[in-house]
Amino acid sequence: MKPAITGTGTFIPSIIKENSKFNDNVFLNADGTSFSNPNAVIIEKFKSITGIEERRYAKAEYNTSDLGFFAAKKAIEDANITAEELDYIIFAHNFGDVKEGAIQSDILPSLATRVKYLLEIENPNCVAYDILFGCPGWIEGVIQAQAFIKAGIAQKCLVIGAETLSRVIDVNDRDSMIYSDGAGACIVEASDKDDSGILSHASQTHTKEEAYYLFFGNSFDKNKDKDIRYIKMHGRKIYEFALNNVPNAMKIALDKSGLSIDDVKKVFIHQANEKMDEAIIKRFYRLYKKPIPEGVMPMSIHKLGNSSVATVPTLLDLVLKGNIENQEVKKGEVIILASVGAGMNINAIVYKY
Amino acid sequence: MKPAITGTGTFIPSIIKENSKFNDNVFLNADGTSFSNPNAVIIEKFKSITGIEERRYAKAEYNTSDLGFFAAKKAIEDANITAEELDYIIFAHNFGDVKEGAIQSDILPSLATRVKYLLEIENPNCVAYDILFGCPGWIEGVIQAQAFIKAGIAQKCLVIGAETLSRVIDVNDRDSMIYSDGAGACIVEASDKDDSGILSHASQTHTKEEAYYLFFGNSFDKNKDKDIRYIKMHGRKIYEFALNNVPNAMKIALDKSGLSIDDVKKVFIHQANEKMDEAIIKRFYRLYKKPIPEGVMPMSIHKLGNSSVATVPTLLDLVLKGNIENQEVKKGEVIILASVGAGMNINAIVYKY
Repeated sequence: MKPAITGTGTFIPSIIKENSKFNDNVFLNADGTSFSNPNAVIIEKFKSITGIEERRYAKAEYNTSDLGFFAAKKAIEDANITAEELDYIIFAHNFGDVKEGAIQSDILPSLATRVKYLLEIENPNCVAYDILFGCPGWIEGVIQAQAFIKAGIAQKCLVIGAETLSRVIDVNDRDSMIYSDGAGACIVEASDKDDSGILSHASQTHTKEEAYYLFFGNSFDKNKDKDIRYIKMHGRKIYEFALNNVPNAMKIALDKSGLSIDDVKKVFIHQANEKMDEAIIKRFYRLYKKPIPEGVMPMSIHKLGNSSVATVPTLLDLVLKGNIENQEVKKGEVIILASVGAGMNINAIVYKY
Repeated sequence: MKPAITGTGTFIPSIIKENSKFNDNVFLNADGTSFSNPNAVIIEKFKSITGIEERRYAKAEYNTSDLGFFAAKKAIEDANITAEELDYIIFAHNFGDVKEGAIQSDILPSLATRVKYLLEIENPNCVAYDILFGCPGWIEGVIQAQAFIKAGIAQKCLVIGAETLSRVIDVNDRDSMIYSDGAGACIVEASDKDDSGILSHASQTHTKEEAYYLFFGNSFDKNKDKDIRYIKMHGRKIYEFALNNVPNAMKIALDKSGLSIDDVKKVFIHQANEKMDEAIIKRFYRLYKKPIPEGVMPMSIHKLGNSSVATVPTLLDLVLKGNIENQEVKKGEVIILASVGAGMNINAIVYKY
């Protein structure tokens, strides 16, 4: 018996925010000083590194939990189950519901509770909780669902990743262009149909030097209220950290599965930065002294940006449903899901479809 | 093999806030109107229902993650292990780090990451994440640790519950007198020494009517900023809900364990309200048509108030270390840990020492 993903769903918010919309932002350095370059140059450089042309923002009337609910509904339909059958609702996020225009995170009750309420589930034995684990939260939720199934305390779990990062960004920080809103979800079920499902995983938290590489910090505009904080990152440090550690974590998971690198057909990696993702995949294949197979790494970052916990389930759903050109996953193929983010957390799942 | 609690620790903040300190609060009804009674009468009534005489507040320099770290250190020492041996750090809370005087919850990085950083753990395979599950979050963390051990992905887990509720209260709401700051922690280990450990559990989330019984809401002072919210509850509804559902959940767990009500020596129940806890225990024993054994329910609420996720691990630690008069747990005795809170979540663990 291997826990398997039996359905996926995504919600892509409708507001398209193109790079040009940042033309009038007053971008500052971390020390509050101005850039010598005009925004057009800053934006072009940003695009050449991250690959991001546009990103999505949620409508003001929707909160993170609503986005999660929309994705969850589709995943439940896709798995052909009813919501009442669920044993767990696991919701990964990092900021809770943040009302547009306000600055407080609302996490009482948990976002999983809100989704259960919106799904109108009556079954009290469907346990709903939230997990905070940085961008890798959704993958970690799948790993937890798998553990509950293996421990015999669950049969069917809904795992959601959703975020509205547009509401926690510092408009004076160039990094604000990275972040996006979105939601993805899946159903993980105990399955004994065949040998498909979760084959192995790896999960890590690096804190000694890295705990605060992603953090909640003040605006680069030094005149702003010091008690208001935003998502902040030490981009260069994260880039180096990811390159040095993500390929290894992926290798740990793959080696545990007993499969060879040649068995891997696709790698679904957290959409944080195109150049970084390309460098990670390069190092990963270098660990096995193999060339990178063409098309092995589907990407959605160009049009969707970095929606944190939502990137991997969204990308997976898009490919499975045939919504990314020249990308597909066929029955029996082996894929890797991998992520890296605040914590600093890293994880990877080796999965056979 | 039964996962077992091999060490406990607690941190009780040093600032004592007596009921008399609320004499000058301007208490209002939910609709913003005043009470006809003076505060002395309101406070006396409050005390007679909840049992709370005083509560603890953390010093301004400490955040929730610091409190959790202090409790965690003691639990690690008590279990006679080193922090480097930990496979998981699971941190239960509901508001994150809230700096005194500020209104934002800081949950980036996760509080578990902050504890791992403070413990100076180098092992990257020690996975640190937060769980949001209302007041029952710490017990749910223990249930998750148990699942990871049973699933073969962990041997030693640190489970922390900590909260600084003093920083999210509406001073115009009488319920603000309930809330307290605190932290408790334990180590859950795979153990095959004898038949002690976690025998069974029950876990529930009720949302149909109950999702927003505890919520993040505005001050009762209608002149205050609508974008600033506080911990709020529908006390009467929670009271009735708890009475109707907690005894049943405890019974589900006890019946699963195969033991009889006569085997239960102590019930450690979330310290939310003394009258409510007494009513719960009464109904629980009524389900078995048995009288309530004297001293079966240790209490700490009189001096410590309601510190949410921290009450059960704190109470357990106090009793195990002989710090509550006439209360002890002897080797071989069976106890129940039970909680209820935001979600609305309920859980119970039947445990043999």
